[in-house]
Amino acid sequence: MRQLLIIGIGAGDPDFITMQAIKALNRVDVFLIPDKGDEKQALKQLRLDICDRYVEREFSWREFCVPKRESEGDYKANVAQWHAEIAEAYERLLTEVPEDGVAGLLVWGDPSLYDSTLRIVDSLKERGRVAFEHEVIPGITAVQVLAAKHRIPLNRIGEPVLVTTGRKLAQGWPSEVETVVVMLDGELAFTKIDPTGLEIFWGAHLGTPSEVLVSGDLAAVADEIVEKRARSRAENGWVMDTYLIRRT
Amino acid sequence: MRQLLIIGIGAGDPDFITMQAIKALNRVDVFLIPDKGDEKQALKQLRLDICDRYVEREFSWREFCVPKRESEGDYKANVAQWHAEIAEAYERLLTEVPEDGVAGLLVWGDPSLYDSTLRIVDSLKERGRVAFEHEVIPGITAVQVLAAKHRIPLNRIGEPVLVTTGRKLAQGWPSEVETVVVMLDGELAFTKIDPTGLEIFWGAHLGTPSEVLVSGDLAAVADEIVEKRARSRAENGWVMDTYLIRRT
Ligand SMILES: C[S@@+](CC[C@H](N)C(=O)[O-])C[C@H]1O[C@@H](n2cnc3c(N)ncnc32)[C@H](O)[C@@H]1O
Ligand SMILES: C[S@@+](CC[C@H](N)C(=O)[O-])C[C@H]1O[C@@H](n2cnc3c(N)ncnc32)[C@H](O)[C@@H]1O
Repeated sequence: MRQLLIIGIGAGDPDFITMQAIKALNRVDVFLIPDKGDEKQALKQLRLDICDRYVEREFSWREFCVPKRESEGDYKANVAQWHAEIAEAYERLLTEVPEDGVAGLLVWGDPSLYDSTLRIVDSLKERGRVAFEHEVIPGITAVQVLAAKHRIPLNRIGEPVLVTTGRKLAQGWPSEVETVVVMLDGELAFTKIDPTGLEIFWGAHLGTPSEVLVSGDLAAVADEIVEKRARSRAENGWVMDTYLIRRT
Repeated sequence: MRQLLIIGIGAGDPDFITMQAIKALNRVDVFLIPDKGDEKQALKQLRLDICDRYVEREFSWREFCVPKRESEGDYKANVAQWHAEIAEAYERLLTEVPEDGVAGLLVWGDPSLYDSTLRIVDSLKERGRVAFEHEVIPGITAVQVLAAKHRIPLNRIGEPVLVTTGRKLAQGWPSEVETVVVMLDGELAFTKIDPTGLEIFWGAHLGTPSEVLVSGDLAAVADEIVEKRARSRAENGWVMDTYLIRRT
């Protein structure tokens, strides 16, 4: 049976790779490498670098263009449509993998966190047009890199942590939690909430040579973050940031 | 200046170790190995195995007995008192490390998630009796292993995830979230909530040869989990489990 390995490669530093991931990389015959257009060129390059660095056997790779997500209209419907198109691309590629072959998908960070690969693979299985088994290999998330670089625990003693998106945080501070981790924030949601009694630990391009860290009282450092984020985006052509906010 | 490396080793499988952690392990002169008494002997052994397997230079280790936490009375006060006692133990051990030496602490899973090491190290710094610098290396958490083994994403598309404890969940389903990850559950909290419309993905001894997985509608599988958890505890002498519950 065809195998599909979904391998978390960690978020940033190639050294975040686990031994388990290295072993999995070395089972792969064909890597499926998504091409998301210019600004994500750096991410694609990192995937290729990881293969070069850790794979000690012959392998090939197949690039495929990731269709663009429709940004007008209903968010969830657009995402569903977009996933269906990606599923079709995977289907075509997988059909070309020999029936006893192993295909590999490298996922930034951990495949379980704000990544669509597992959902797409499930829909592939449901369509049932190509037979395969799949395995998931965890990787270090941006959230963990953020915590490690700031040398902080995510949770207060015995207390919960909410992992959420910028879109959600912009709607207001969630009830019942004292600590919030925010990803996928394109709208500077931390500037849209009341900063009283909140502290922030922020990081962009975590684990990479362009890493930037800022922490402090939210009211005191929000402007500095906005500015450093803009500068980092200008210098790198794109920016990925993650932050933790908690009540002091 | 003395260095203290706080190294996440992943939760379960020694292959969860990252390249970054392996490099860090190989910088350590003295490993500080906590001894938490009989039932955690397996965890201590795993730490020693990791050193044996990945460290390619001379090193020594110092065991120290971890004082027991008072279980009667105020939870947070007991934890604080317990951390202070552990901090004193670390202080004594660190003082014995040469001033240009590197000490290492191996942390199960990731140091940022429900682990007291970083808080204890902060209190050590505040006491100021022993000078050192510290670095944190992230590791794969039990939450990620759970998701990988069940091959599920933690979050629904664009939706938040609450990471919490059994103690908290037993107080009722949190508001505003559809997905909850539960750790540190000694009281089978999943049996104490209304199971209607909820599904669970449960795992014990994740990443180890004793791993057990169960998933399904909470109402349908709760008894099976209670039973398998009890059997797993009986067979291994202890049990660690983590689960995700979400609305269907
Ligand atoms: C589509 S999600 C993927 C998350 C990934 N699966 C993980 O485990 O970290 C992308 C978001 O992750 C965060 N992110 C990923 N890599 C990052 C990095 N190196 N530095 C800061 N944030 C990062 C940002 O919040 C970004 O918007
Ligand atoms: C003190 S916390 C430590 C968590 C750890 N720092 C991590 O990153 O996973 C211990 C809790 O983690 C979870 N846990 C740790 N290792 C586990 C494993 N191998 N299988 C299942 N649960 C585990 C359980 O919920 C347990 O009660």
